[in-house]
Amino acid sequence: MSKKTIYDHIDEHFDEHVAKVQELIRQPSISSEGRGIRECAQLIQGYFEKLGCVDARLVETSGNPVAYGEYDAGAKKTVLVYMMYDTMPVDEPGWIVPPLEGRIVDMAPFGKTLVARGAVNTKGEIRAFLNACESIRSSGQELPVNLIFVAEGEEEMGSRNLPEFLGKYQEKLKRANVVFFPLVAQNQNGKVIVELGVKGIVYFELELDGKDWSKGPTEFGIHGSNKSWVDSPVWRMIQALATMTSEDGNQVLIEGFYDDVVPPPTEDEELLKKLQQTFDEEAIKMELKVKKFINDLHGVEALKRYLYSPQLNIDGIWAGYTGPGTKTLLPHKVTLKMDVRLVPNMSKEKPIPLIRRHLDKHGFGEVKIRILEKGYDWAKTSVRTPAAQAVLRTYREFGFDPEVWPNIAGSAPFSMFNRAPLNLPFVMGGLGHGARAHSPNEYLVIGEGGPTAGLPGMEKSFVSILYNLAEM
Amino acid sequence: MSKKTIYDHIDEHFDEHVAKVQELIRQPSISSEGRGIRECAQLIQGYFEKLGCVDARLVETSGNPVAYGEYDAGAKKTVLVYMMYDTMPVDEPGWIVPPLEGRIVDMAPFGKTLVARGAVNTKGEIRAFLNACESIRSSGQELPVNLIFVAEGEEEMGSRNLPEFLGKYQEKLKRANVVFFPLVAQNQNGKVIVELGVKGIVYFELELDGKDWSKGPTEFGIHGSNKSWVDSPVWRMIQALATMTSEDGNQVLIEGFYDDVVPPPTEDEELLKKLQQTFDEEAIKMELKVKKFINDLHGVEALKRYLYSPQLNIDGIWAGYTGPGTKTLLPHKVTLKMDVRLVPNMSKEKPIPLIRRHLDKHGFGEVKIRILEKGYDWAKTSVRTPAAQAVLRTYREFGFDPEVWPNIAGSAPFSMFNRAPLNLPFVMGGLGHGARAHSPNEYLVIGEGGPTAGLPGMEKSFVSILYNLAEM
Repeated sequence: MSKKTIYDHIDEHFDEHVAKVQELIRQPSISSEGRGIRECAQLIQGYFEKLGCVDARLVETSGNPVAYGEYDAGAKKTVLVYMMYDTMPVDEPGWIVPPLEGRIVDMAPFGKTLVARGAVNTKGEIRAFLNACESIRSSGQELPVNLIFVAEGEEEMGSRNLPEFLGKYQEKLKRANVVFFPLVAQNQNGKVIVELGVKGIVYFELELDGKDWSKGPTEFGIHGSNKSWVDSPVWRMIQALATMTSEDGNQVLIEGFYDDVVPPPTEDEELLKKLQQTFDEEAIKMELKVKKFINDLHGVEALKRYLYSPQLNIDGIWAGYTGPGTKTLLPHKVTLKMDVRLVPNMSKEKPIPLIRRHLDKHGFGEVKIRILEKGYDWAKTSVRTPAAQAVLRTYREFGFDPEVWPNIAGSAPFSMFNRAPLNLPFVMGGLGHGARAHSPNEYLVIGEGGPTAGLPGMEKSFVSILYNLAEM
Repeated sequence: MSKKTIYDHIDEHFDEHVAKVQELIRQPSISSEGRGIRECAQLIQGYFEKLGCVDARLVETSGNPVAYGEYDAGAKKTVLVYMMYDTMPVDEPGWIVPPLEGRIVDMAPFGKTLVARGAVNTKGEIRAFLNACESIRSSGQELPVNLIFVAEGEEEMGSRNLPEFLGKYQEKLKRANVVFFPLVAQNQNGKVIVELGVKGIVYFELELDGKDWSKGPTEFGIHGSNKSWVDSPVWRMIQALATMTSEDGNQVLIEGFYDDVVPPPTEDEELLKKLQQTFDEEAIKMELKVKKFINDLHGVEALKRYLYSPQLNIDGIWAGYTGPGTKTLLPHKVTLKMDVRLVPNMSKEKPIPLIRRHLDKHGFGEVKIRILEKGYDWAKTSVRTPAAQAVLRTYREFGFDPEVWPNIAGSAPFSMFNRAPLNLPFVMGGLGHGARAHSPNEYLVIGEGGPTAGLPGMEKSFVSILYNLAEM
């Protein structure tokens, strides 16, 4: 059997495959607004049926439904395909096209490019993966692996009900040998970037309210001149926060915060050595508009700091009068949004109790912690696993020498799959390029001929990945 | 000569006097929006002409015009009457009547009450004072003092161009023996409160921007996961702020901050002893919704802290993501609105350089200070001055035993009059009651018969004050 036949089929059906991507784009599925969610899940359930799944259904959860499908190829290996069908909202200014029409524009240097909400995150990949599977069958072949599809509708809300589904379906899901997340891996220059792990995250608010404190104003901000004889929740919070970090804000002083952090394993040290050769530090700084990394770190030292250190970040803070000009006010409360990022072997259950204990120990029992997202644990797949090797082999087949990142600083719900009860290796990837995932003019390259693969290249890479996973 | 004739005239012309107050209310004069300012100044200039001023004009400044008037009674003493004709905006929700119509409502326990923007702050008093002057003349008498009217239109913007006017007109203004600010002095129970001084104020912003720092994001907030390798302007600002106060946020640790503070003079100690007897601590706490003062101070100790200590207040703070739910962000800047209140003998020129020096000394040179209002100095009139005694005598004439506050914790532009070049004693007062100056449903009691004086009582008290000032 030659994959050539399948690849030719993909090339010959370009227009049809683009139209299928556009169809899925045009069905809104904005989870934070509850817009189009069920309709989108049903559309995807229909795709699973059309592909020939023996079981295709919507599974209800406490939140949005999961579109679930089982495809039985009579193969030895089973791949659990993780998908997210929900998207970010579309109401921010700056879109050059209507965000839900699936318009294809000519975007330099890529050529034909889909500009739409969900283009790359991740409706484009969902439909491209299904196009790839259909193309195998249309070329007269059977799929090389059995598939279990899990398409969730709450990734943009922290996958909050995914554990509920995974618990309920664990017996079925345990049959899988690997979890695969179709997600384009090329940067804008065409370089293929493989990311083998993610950090965990816990997201919460800190608040100091005079009502909880029995000091300061308790109900509303009062005239600023009262600071002379009334305590200030804002000053008090400043003092509480200041105990949490070193003077440069970079070392966390919460007792036990770093206790479970382990150094990068030898395997990662090797990957970092190689990564260092292609890691374009200046390009990243330019993109972030950052002049220096912490302590002016460079090269592998900067990478290690980025990938292997946990963090305590202030995402936002607000209190009192924040309008133009002057208004004197003694605010009655102050609130912060904060996140902790977790690296191996930290657990997402630990940071909140540690912060609570720190605050209490320093006499700041009045500071309240409000957990907004229980979050994800970190997750990591060894480059040595057959699953990772299968994906790398695909890139090499297409002539790429991938840049391998042992993990990234961002977070994703991979730990829900690669820990108990499923304990499945998790890999993601695919040729192709897109960007601006949470911004206006989100895009996915469709045409071939630019510096990156387009839709056909992406679909071919998915075909190849399935064949390589079959041989794990 | 008996004041009785004048008082009877006031009672007989109640409806007419109310209508005149309403006329002034209906002319908007919102300085922060530039709304109706010149028209209001012209209206007041017209009032000065109608009263019989020999000179009545608008004096241009770099900002809003001053309505200026000179009334020559051929008297020995000259009173400079300070007025502010500008008001706060009217766009906040919660008004029970349209804020610029001058509606009179029946408000328990006061009876007839004017509910309008500017009712008590201070168009009501402006027109009541003019009604009082007109009533003296209409009763066949000459005013007992010469008057110089200075009605400014930028009090709500920090009187920013008043010094310019005072400098230009100092030769004329120096002829005055005293400055009087007509302002009702009764609280809601009818108690008369005399306030002899104010604190000074400086208002500014502190900002830490990655652009100024050469660390952290410089142009926009970046994905929160970058905190691991990029510095945080917010954490850094927290550390800078924390060096400025004690752990409870109440003692300012900026070197030199308290250097010029002097203890209350003996005269004030005596006033405080008397004040303590009527000072209703629990009522104030209830109004402010505050359970405890700083260090749980009570009585005269609380009063001393309130009236004689300078403060460093955080009026507002903001950075990063402050919306609902979760968004991970490493903000590129953080901003605070802050004020320093000044007590004798601090100078408004000192705090900003001290804060600058403190920040630099602690290595926070990257924190920027942006002065929003150069502010006022503190001001104080001794209770022993003939001017203060003249006002106290009026209250006693009407049967009140006033509660005398040696000063208040708030700020007002009195220092512009009672320091060089004018060096004039400054007093304020009048019977009557109003409240909610910067809030919806600002009001001024108009009718008599409730716990406080209404418009006639207020006008009579102004008449009495003028006669008492004539005898200084």
